[in-house]
Amino acid sequence: MSPPTGSEPDGNAAYGHKPFKRSRSHFADRITADGRDGWPVEAGRYRLVVSRACPWASRSLVSRRLLGLEDALSLAVADPIQDDRSWRFTLDEGGRDPVLGIAYLSEAYEAREPGYLGGVSVPAIVDVPSGKLVTNDFQQITLDFATEWTALHRPGAPDLYPERLRDEIDEVMDGIYRDVNNGVYRAGFASGQEEYDAAYHDVFRRLDLVSERLKDQRYLVGDTLTEADIRLFTTLVRFDAVYHGHFKCNRSKLTEIPVLWAYARDLFQTPGFGDTVDFDHIKQHYYRVHTGINPTGIVPLGPDLSGWGTPHHREQLGGRPFGDGTPPE
Amino acid sequence: MSPPTGSEPDGNAAYGHKPFKRSRSHFADRITADGRDGWPVEAGRYRLVVSRACPWASRSLVSRRLLGLEDALSLAVADPIQDDRSWRFTLDEGGRDPVLGIAYLSEAYEAREPGYLGGVSVPAIVDVPSGKLVTNDFQQITLDFATEWTALHRPGAPDLYPERLRDEIDEVMDGIYRDVNNGVYRAGFASGQEEYDAAYHDVFRRLDLVSERLKDQRYLVGDTLTEADIRLFTTLVRFDAVYHGHFKCNRSKLTEIPVLWAYARDLFQTPGFGDTVDFDHIKQHYYRVHTGINPTGIVPLGPDLSGWGTPHHREQLGGRPFGDGTPPE
Repeated sequence: MSPPTGSEPDGNAAYGHKPFKRSRSHFADRITADGRDGWPVEAGRYRLVVSRACPWASRSLVSRRLLGLEDALSLAVADPIQDDRSWRFTLDEGGRDPVLGIAYLSEAYEAREPGYLGGVSVPAIVDVPSGKLVTNDFQQITLDFATEWTALHRPGAPDLYPERLRDEIDEVMDGIYRDVNNGVYRAGFASGQEEYDAAYHDVFRRLDLVSERLKDQRYLVGDTLTEADIRLFTTLVRFDAVYHGHFKCNRSKLTEIPVLWAYARDLFQTPGFGDTVDFDHIKQHYYRVHTGINPTGIVPLGPDLSGWGTPHHREQLGGRPFGDGTPPE
Repeated sequence: MSPPTGSEPDGNAAYGHKPFKRSRSHFADRITADGRDGWPVEAGRYRLVVSRACPWASRSLVSRRLLGLEDALSLAVADPIQDDRSWRFTLDEGGRDPVLGIAYLSEAYEAREPGYLGGVSVPAIVDVPSGKLVTNDFQQITLDFATEWTALHRPGAPDLYPERLRDEIDEVMDGIYRDVNNGVYRAGFASGQEEYDAAYHDVFRRLDLVSERLKDQRYLVGDTLTEADIRLFTTLVRFDAVYHGHFKCNRSKLTEIPVLWAYARDLFQTPGFGDTVDFDHIKQHYYRVHTGINPTGIVPLGPDLSGWGTPHHREQLGGRPFGDGTPPE
């Protein structure tokens, strides 16, 4: 899974003797309006590489849809199953990405830094003319979509990172990152019972806090969709499919936490969220790649996903999903 | 797990290339009223050996309680974690069963058949004077409790295998055994995706049929508790704790199947059922012994079990749990 870690891709963190720790992104250049890192925002110049399995990459998929960046920033989707050389374009004809012409994402890393031996992760943004990786900084990519790519936003794009709410959004996202987004990984890749126990308690304590927060308000911060909702969503949508069983986060299913389940369905049914989700990619990836915790590679047929389309009644809480803007097509 | 299989105890069936197959019990002598196999029903003569983790052994625990055989037939409880020599009495002082004086259940098998190299399983009934295993025939033991041990039943004991309903009980139990009791094992120990898929579909197709059957009637056959209910119960009570995640039977949790969940709670709250259940033994056993499917040996902290004590409202369906008899103390 990505973003990069020393041990995560094959799930063998479970066998190390050190606790699971997520590595920092190695390539942290930013694509900005003023191009100060040498990478100016420009329509058609960059290619976003994701796996639909990956929660971190999926943030960028949601954000790109909500902001209407599809025409400006094209998309490459990697096979959910990595091989020894990591993410690859085996879903594409001939096993190569048709725009970048490469078989493995690592080729873009190599183009950027010859001899690079570190982790290869998604989301990644590649400069199409040079074939070089620009950034794999999963925490920054979506913030820059919201604040630096504004010239290319669609008409009616929401403000996903409103200036006056940034402190609150950052604080909310910080706790959710530590305990939920990354907490499920700490539980699933724990090297021992105590480490697992601690992560499990973090996950559910935070979910309970978030659930309390969302009881009377439709979104995490303010009355519109923000970056914070995107980041919580990409973990929640995977919860019952992979984190509950495979990562042993099993106090309860998401479907058994009424407020969060309604909140997650509300987002799922909002254009730009559910339409980015591929449950098959998610399950295939987690259960087949992490052989350290699922040695048989058998992929569960459940859970029943039919509930995602059921009424959530969250509109009764008010809120203006897109603020002064409009939903994407 | 038990009853005996060639490959099950360490969960490594998952690595074999042949489908999971449950072995027949090796020792099938019967303890009867007339003693025709040389083992007459007799108070104080035999010792029942179980693991509270094991669904097959747990049938005999429920049956013994409902029929009030506790004084006539004493009980040895094995450690939920087997070692290389299988079931052992490490929960007892000095690591030996205080009545049989043995450290391993295999010693009773050896006393019965010197040089025995087959599987060692619970439930097992041991002849205390000779120390010999009498039977490990999990399908027959509880039927004999109901029909052969009648002279030792408590006053008010129910008829768990009423003669006029036996054909129907047998038929119901047969489908439940194949698809549910054993079906969850076929799913969990499948050696490949196709084998797992088939077992998964069997499990849930049968649960749906059973659920339909129990919609308007309180018990599986007739209007009283029978052997069929005992056999379904010991699988249902383990469903969310181990079969859902560990064995990948995850279309839905038991708590998400309203009729079956109410039925299971009804039984759980009936004296003789829930009071035999030890969720800790269950989880420790499955998650720590089956290293072939859970190599880390980490035991999940979930699920939340507090729902088992909640009202089930099944008494509205009528039924007479103990027929003309009474509940056990």
